[in-house]
Amino acid sequence: MRHLIAEVERGGRVESRHYGSVAIVDASGRDVLTLGDTSLAVFPRSTVKPLLALPLVESGAASRLKLTDAELAVICASHNGEEAHTQTVAGILQRVGQSVACLECGAHWPLGDKACHDLAAQGGHPSALHNNCSGKHAGLICLALDQQLDPENYVSPDHPVQQQVTAVLATMTDAVYDAQHRGMDGCSMPTYAIPLRQLALGFARFGASDMLEADRGKAAARLRAAIAAAPFMLAGTGRFDTRLITHFGRRVFCKMGAEGVMVAALPDVGLGIAIKVEDGANRAAEVALAALLQKIPTLTGSDEDQTFLASLSCAPLKTGTGGKSAASAHLKPSAGYRFFQAEPNPGLVKA
Amino acid sequence: MRHLIAEVERGGRVESRHYGSVAIVDASGRDVLTLGDTSLAVFPRSTVKPLLALPLVESGAASRLKLTDAELAVICASHNGEEAHTQTVAGILQRVGQSVACLECGAHWPLGDKACHDLAAQGGHPSALHNNCSGKHAGLICLALDQQLDPENYVSPDHPVQQQVTAVLATMTDAVYDAQHRGMDGCSMPTYAIPLRQLALGFARFGASDMLEADRGKAAARLRAAIAAAPFMLAGTGRFDTRLITHFGRRVFCKMGAEGVMVAALPDVGLGIAIKVEDGANRAAEVALAALLQKIPTLTGSDEDQTFLASLSCAPLKTGTGGKSAASAHLKPSAGYRFFQAEPNPGLVKA
Repeated sequence: MRHLIAEVERGGRVESRHYGSVAIVDASGRDVLTLGDTSLAVFPRSTVKPLLALPLVESGAASRLKLTDAELAVICASHNGEEAHTQTVAGILQRVGQSVACLECGAHWPLGDKACHDLAAQGGHPSALHNNCSGKHAGLICLALDQQLDPENYVSPDHPVQQQVTAVLATMTDAVYDAQHRGMDGCSMPTYAIPLRQLALGFARFGASDMLEADRGKAAARLRAAIAAAPFMLAGTGRFDTRLITHFGRRVFCKMGAEGVMVAALPDVGLGIAIKVEDGANRAAEVALAALLQKIPTLTGSDEDQTFLASLSCAPLKTGTGGKSAASAHLKPSAGYRFFQAEPNPGLVKA
Repeated sequence: MRHLIAEVERGGRVESRHYGSVAIVDASGRDVLTLGDTSLAVFPRSTVKPLLALPLVESGAASRLKLTDAELAVICASHNGEEAHTQTVAGILQRVGQSVACLECGAHWPLGDKACHDLAAQGGHPSALHNNCSGKHAGLICLALDQQLDPENYVSPDHPVQQQVTAVLATMTDAVYDAQHRGMDGCSMPTYAIPLRQLALGFARFGASDMLEADRGKAAARLRAAIAAAPFMLAGTGRFDTRLITHFGRRVFCKMGAEGVMVAALPDVGLGIAIKVEDGANRAAEVALAALLQKIPTLTGSDEDQTFLASLSCAPLKTGTGGKSAASAHLKPSAGYRFFQAEPNPGLVKA
């Protein structure tokens, strides 16, 4: 049931192999492509951050707080901890009269290498603002305060805002969210294991605003527009999600999650995608999504799109600079990774 | 043929899985344990650095240059780029009248997080000394100069020192080293794909000095003693190899390589070990070696050894500090990872 997804090639040989599963569904719940075992429950991790942001927007809280595109995008982000990210999160907290002290995500050095070096060069140390999840946490604090709730312990499954966002996850993905499916994410928030195809369904619906209840549909469209307008805020310098959305704008939404999870919403063709790399390698999930998108000619058929996706689907592995090994190895889609040849679909996508 | 090696567990569920192969052989070439496909050719990457250092020692060059334990250990290292590492490599180059300019490995930011932050905090930028392979490169330059050879282009397969170290690899591992098996490593040196069991054989022999030709055997013993005396130099703060050898001293030698390769030499029980994690994840190779060592009671039967190995074979995954997620997930040996129950061996190891 496991599907070969991506391979590292060195010296004309396969050095490493990544296996995983892929689900593509439309917003009505029809399976468009199934590779591997998509009934397998996976922890979506950070991929669902945009779904967690829906209540903030559909409740009107985001409008009342006049949250900008950049602020909404960073609320959905796993960001690099670059200065623009931390300042944007700090600005959200300031808007609601709070400080970094109310963030319950913990601190870590910025995900982004340059952000890390810059922070150290300034004699700085990471705060909770640098945590890649700080935007999500700030969003939940906003949601609590808009409802005159005490935000303290907003990471607990019992807190009213957790119950609200979990209810939205359940209606978007038609999956079960209970204590038996619960784990704790790296930032202390709950994460719930759900079947991969239900995760894909959630993002098919996220991309199909007109098929959702009115307020929910408007909120999803607002979040997608905000992220398309401020893709840097979703991840940062050099990151896959930022590069992909910077190129495609509103045509492609994507979001990575830790341990090799990736989702996408393709509003123009009405599809949602969810990928889980079995071994947890995000490098393979990125290559897999780029390779998948290359096979949807109605969406990415232009030479410009194909050239761009080819650059993302074959990633050079490079240790340093100044040596002679620039092209010594690549991560690339497996030769066995024939999505639409394996399961041709007469509809939206083809081989 | 693939063997489940390690799993990430979160919320009582398996989140990610790592597969791979394991070869354990003795110095006479007898297979003691075979899991997965050990005839598969893998790139050993940095695991063979100690074998590459043999000519420097057995030729007498190391003695003529009065190389210390720390210097020999850093020549075998994939180091963190901490100040002690870069100063030791700089000292070797100075000894032979060379500077950082002759290193052909290229530069990268230190592997070690703290070393990285410290360098940035000093306003510094990485040089070739910070490259985790800089010691290996310095060793080859020493070897060339000791023979009155021009070190320039010592990374080329055609350079006399490359031919010497490749000949040593061939006699240690009984494998084929030719252009068809060659790839380029991240530091611009050649790396040759060889069967995993041949890699294990090379390290069984590395640990069995008395079974090697006299000068070779003395050189292997000298390198193992140097690394046991200066395990920090082999890797650095917090690193698996350094922690393992700091605990076991001369009883256990190990060395990681990129893309999920790990080797070990166990002189007291006459075994060599080679592990390749199929997906290239070093985290799984570390857990696998620790779990393997736990199952060799004649070597690691004491409570102290078992407690130490248990701490290495179950590794918490943690994103930040200050949050509540300290124990949210672990990487641990798979429940299916029953080495010596699967293939009981009446000799040196048992279930």
